[in-house]
Amino acid sequence: MPRTATGESSLARAVRVLDAFTADEPVLRVSEIARRAGLHVATASRIVGHLVEEGLLARGEDGSVRGGMRLWELASRAAPTRSLRDAAMPFLEDLHAVVGHHAQLAVRDGDEVIFLERLSARDAVVNFSRIAGRLPLHISSSGVVLLAYGPPELRERVLARPLEGRTAATVTSPERLRALLGQVRQQGYALLPGHVHEDATGIAVPVRDGLGEVVASLSVILPNDDRAASAVPVLLAAARGIGRALRDP
Amino acid sequence: MPRTATGESSLARAVRVLDAFTADEPVLRVSEIARRAGLHVATASRIVGHLVEEGLLARGEDGSVRGGMRLWELASRAAPTRSLRDAAMPFLEDLHAVVGHHAQLAVRDGDEVIFLERLSARDAVVNFSRIAGRLPLHISSSGVVLLAYGPPELRERVLARPLEGRTAATVTSPERLRALLGQVRQQGYALLPGHVHEDATGIAVPVRDGLGEVVASLSVILPNDDRAASAVPVLLAAARGIGRALRDP
Repeated sequence: MPRTATGESSLARAVRVLDAFTADEPVLRVSEIARRAGLHVATASRIVGHLVEEGLLARGEDGSVRGGMRLWELASRAAPTRSLRDAAMPFLEDLHAVVGHHAQLAVRDGDEVIFLERLSARDAVVNFSRIAGRLPLHISSSGVVLLAYGPPELRERVLARPLEGRTAATVTSPERLRALLGQVRQQGYALLPGHVHEDATGIAVPVRDGLGEVVASLSVILPNDDRAASAVPVLLAAARGIGRALRDP
Repeated sequence: MPRTATGESSLARAVRVLDAFTADEPVLRVSEIARRAGLHVATASRIVGHLVEEGLLARGEDGSVRGGMRLWELASRAAPTRSLRDAAMPFLEDLHAVVGHHAQLAVRDGDEVIFLERLSARDAVVNFSRIAGRLPLHISSSGVVLLAYGPPELRERVLARPLEGRTAATVTSPERLRALLGQVRQQGYALLPGHVHEDATGIAVPVRDGLGEVVASLSVILPNDDRAASAVPVLLAAARGIGRALRDP
């Protein structure tokens, strides 16, 4: 890939432009894209032009810019988690139908949890995770499960860093987090009342592939009351179903 | 974007590399990518290297290449159809729970229908559409609805071209297709027994946004028998619900 005077490849700058868009702001003006990507307006405008040419971005009638169908299509076809999502979707639907509120599928990407899919009821309790949203691993039940079953060096790396808090309940002490991870591995699930939002409880279980490796976490978000724990058995059963579908597609 | 000796931008070649991946073959070797993208192996290898650097592709331990999490993440956040999908998902779930088999959401992109979402039962009747899959507009019930309610110049363009057949039932005569489109507009849905696969009937209805424009089609795929028509009312009701959610998020 040809490189600019600063040594950055043109592809890297195209990715910076795409990265300016968020789920909450999927439509941007070029000046805003330039600001977010840290590029001159003229440079951003040229890159946007190339991305529009390829269909990765699309221009509205008022000159605003949004994601293009081609970007979504290329990504959906090549999604690394496609077979996982396909295997999980029927079980996620059943879980959502039975438990209500939010049902989620998440995987680890580096030191963060990324949410692949979320089914939500309209009147569900609050929840800040969203599809393609990310959270540090120690905050949500989904992340804590992936951290608990992740490689030891990942755990030591996360434990060595400052742990950001979201609510008074978020675990921000390394000692408490280490104890929590041990407890999660022992009991086979994470139940975290109020860790992401005071009114919500997240409950997550590991999903294992055909080799027994934990490849994802399955979770529900419920109101923060004493009935939340009753969702554990249905989550464990659904995770086993996904594991079976992964082994035997 | 810098251009190569052939005048093609480096971004265009990166897109050709990404385009080599399909839902059925999400993991490829560099030599196969080069063949599909029509590039020299050395060129393909260099572009793959840049895409891996940016996280848009990922390399397996055996040197094979697959889509990267970052590609999926960027595309999901910036997806042009995100608000449509969010509005439609609860209704699509209800439809799937009530009707079983496959429930699908599709939009038009150029002269093709592209499937945004599909919920499938495990024992569902056959269906060849898939998420991010495309079909020419005249073949499936989803496409026929989008064609029937699309701009007149689109219809004339499609009618002027050879119409590919899939089964003996696919409409391949322009006269019959014109009559079918008129019938669909009059009755408000398309019911096409055996047009995509002999054993399946597709039934699709239009989804209208807050301005009354048809922005998507909602469909179910059922066994090709005389009970299929009973799904029309629940489809029409679900499409109205999605329209309401689009108007009043």
